[in-house]
Amino acid sequence: MGGQAARSPEFVQSLERGLAVIRAFDAEHPQLTLSDVARRTGLTRAAARRFLLTLVELGYVHTDGRLFSLRARILALGYAYLSGLGLPEIAQPHMEALVAQVHESCSVSVLDGDEVVYVARVPTKRIMTVGISVGTRFPAYATSMGRVLLAAQPADRLADYLATARLQQLTRRTVTDPAKLRAILTKIAAQGYAIVDQELEEGLRSLAAPVHGAHGAVVAAVNLSAHASRGSFELIRRELLPPLLATARRIEEDLRGPS
Amino acid sequence: MGGQAARSPEFVQSLERGLAVIRAFDAEHPQLTLSDVARRTGLTRAAARRFLLTLVELGYVHTDGRLFSLRARILALGYAYLSGLGLPEIAQPHMEALVAQVHESCSVSVLDGDEVVYVARVPTKRIMTVGISVGTRFPAYATSMGRVLLAAQPADRLADYLATARLQQLTRRTVTDPAKLRAILTKIAAQGYAIVDQELEEGLRSLAAPVHGAHGAVVAAVNLSAHASRGSFELIRRELLPPLLATARRIEEDLRGPS
Repeated sequence: MGGQAARSPEFVQSLERGLAVIRAFDAEHPQLTLSDVARRTGLTRAAARRFLLTLVELGYVHTDGRLFSLRARILALGYAYLSGLGLPEIAQPHMEALVAQVHESCSVSVLDGDEVVYVARVPTKRIMTVGISVGTRFPAYATSMGRVLLAAQPADRLADYLATARLQQLTRRTVTDPAKLRAILTKIAAQGYAIVDQELEEGLRSLAAPVHGAHGAVVAAVNLSAHASRGSFELIRRELLPPLLATARRIEEDLRGPS
Repeated sequence: MGGQAARSPEFVQSLERGLAVIRAFDAEHPQLTLSDVARRTGLTRAAARRFLLTLVELGYVHTDGRLFSLRARILALGYAYLSGLGLPEIAQPHMEALVAQVHESCSVSVLDGDEVVYVARVPTKRIMTVGISVGTRFPAYATSMGRVLLAAQPADRLADYLATARLQQLTRRTVTDPAKLRAILTKIAAQGYAIVDQELEEGLRSLAAPVHGAHGAVVAAVNLSAHASRGSFELIRRELLPPLLATARRIEEDLRGPS
């Protein structure tokens, strides 16, 4: 999970810096000047310029001479991962059936370091939708999918996580005490699902179940999220948990393939 | 649009090679050995090893010591582009409404070099779904969205494309004659939509409309695809074209923002 280790002698620093330049762009900063990129990456202007011009030559970045922005080619990098994973394609029809049944948004995510990363999402048809898409990241400790995935970690990795993760008070309900979080994760591992009540964002409840791969290990989590206005915590558990668990089982059956 | 130009003296070759290592992985090759990566990138084994180990240290690649595979962190690279684009989020609810109305899959794509890249997709709820997701690429000339996007290119870029693109016979119907393709694109520019009848794949018809951004330029294309079993070319045009054009207009209105 986190931690900046010493770099091996074979480490290619130019690659690290080039990838940092790509990651300098985000939803709030889709267009950056050379100075912006230098400041956001900690590179000198001369170095930032070399990496930006290289990315322009390779077709990953567009520039009008002053402003730089990412181009669609950049999607090819992440697409290799998503298409190789297979999971989103297998999960999608089951997620769609679940959303049609319960009218709440369904997502599948995997753990990346201390965060969950969405790899598939089926939003419900509401006027107000949350701005979550494939690639969105949230801190694992405050989300139902993150807790399901943390609960499935080997003991040593979990201990390392609890010792090092920064548990921030995101809402007044967020659990930030490592000992309390460990107790919650133990319970989740035993019961096979997690429910999180407004710990990531006020008004947002979600429940998640683990998805086991063909070899039995937890490979992902699947969730449903619901606005608090849908009803009480207990009502959500009663209405949404059984179909969610059934969906997780169907995805697992497809992952195992024809027997 | 394609073409390998001479590299500038400031070009960072290590970054190009590192990105090539990432792109060596794909749906058919989600796990690669060091030798595989060297062969697929044209790098020496020693160089491939340095880049792979760097990507492992940075958390983008996983290895068991022998096999290498991409990790979820790689999505962060493409996510910056998608979230900065704004378009998928704006288009999604309109695409969902269209799919609910016509029961065919809807996609939005942009042009990247000679290919279209999917940036949003709402599949229809069918048992058989096509394995297309965000990041999927197709050659522009054989797809309805590609033709809409090509038809909106400045004359010099279009001439360059027609002079250099490799127009391959993907089905027995694919138009591969540049002069004929140019005539088709002229017609598309005039009529404001494209219909492609089984030129990318036998049995697959699709129609696409341009999406104009706030400043009037074509920023994307939106399409519907339908299996040939749905009915004749004319039936598809009559049933699907009006709702598709209406959807494109609604997306454009939202892109312009409150007036």
